[in-house]
Amino acid sequence: MRKEDYDYIVGSVTSIPNFPKRGVLFRDITSLIEDAKAFNLAIDAMAEKYANSGYVKIMAAEARGFIFGAALAARIGAGIVMVRKPGKLPRETLSEEYTLEYGSSILQCHKDSIDTGDKVLIVDDLLATGGTALAMLSLARCLGADVSEACFAICLKDLPGRRLLKEHSVEAFSLIDYSGD
Amino acid sequence: MRKEDYDYIVGSVTSIPNFPKRGVLFRDITSLIEDAKAFNLAIDAMAEKYANSGYVKIMAAEARGFIFGAALAARIGAGIVMVRKPGKLPRETLSEEYTLEYGSSILQCHKDSIDTGDKVLIVDDLLATGGTALAMLSLARCLGADVSEACFAICLKDLPGRRLLKEHSVEAFSLIDYSGD
Repeated sequence: MRKEDYDYIVGSVTSIPNFPKRGVLFRDITSLIEDAKAFNLAIDAMAEKYANSGYVKIMAAEARGFIFGAALAARIGAGIVMVRKPGKLPRETLSEEYTLEYGSSILQCHKDSIDTGDKVLIVDDLLATGGTALAMLSLARCLGADVSEACFAICLKDLPGRRLLKEHSVEAFSLIDYSGD
Repeated sequence: MRKEDYDYIVGSVTSIPNFPKRGVLFRDITSLIEDAKAFNLAIDAMAEKYANSGYVKIMAAEARGFIFGAALAARIGAGIVMVRKPGKLPRETLSEEYTLEYGSSILQCHKDSIDTGDKVLIVDDLLATGGTALAMLSLARCLGADVSEACFAICLKDLPGRRLLKEHSVEAFSLIDYSGD
């Protein structure tokens, strides 16, 4: 990616103090995706990395993950597997409990959404503690997926997400890294 | 779109009786988007219609609307405006109450997500009663958007959504129409 394109994408992210709770500096990607140039440069950079990697499916978590997941799927010709909170998916699901940065919950995907051996890329807007990404990884591998990479718009690199994924043999790529949050 | 492609997309939709409540035949697009071929054919068909229409932004409602909205935005080079339930968007929001097929709620978008005169396309997975689409239309026009078209994967054509949008000078396009639901 050209430096001016990278700078344009970084400049489109809004930093919001004390959201969703006091003491958290929230990196807001809604201003990035609202900006046609920033959004398409971001998806270009992701697509360039994964275009010829043989991914048949992207797994993404609701709701902001759907934005990057679906856009990237449309660029590289993949399908998209939705990972959602309980009660949202209409067919038979597989569940995984996970830890969020601000609490804990359960994520689900359809049991028939992945075939054994499918090469699956995990996508989300943000990598922080890694709770959501590890839950997705567990769901995908439980269904027999071949997962070795995950892609994020933003990585908070002082938090353990990237290291935890690495310990599970998954290489995390991020467009923008922040430290000191 | 070629008939065989259309048939492939239609064949990828799952029909689920009595979801989310008894008597409703739920048209499930998760099986469509999980199928790389069906999903990309669907986005191709949408992009073909809107590629050179000058859309700078797509407005989409959480969460399934994000899938089609973001994928289409990535194909036609637009940005994406997220419409979400209260408390999810970090910056100053505009709110609109709306009626769903199975209840009522409030939708919000960021006040600064659209500039006056922006040509905005409304996108969602499903057009039924039109409640969500009309709420999006109200939000977009309140912010000064130029809205004349809306795009859906599925339209339940016995329900009034398409007619209601037409009454508000919005032409609704859908990939697949169902009647008798």
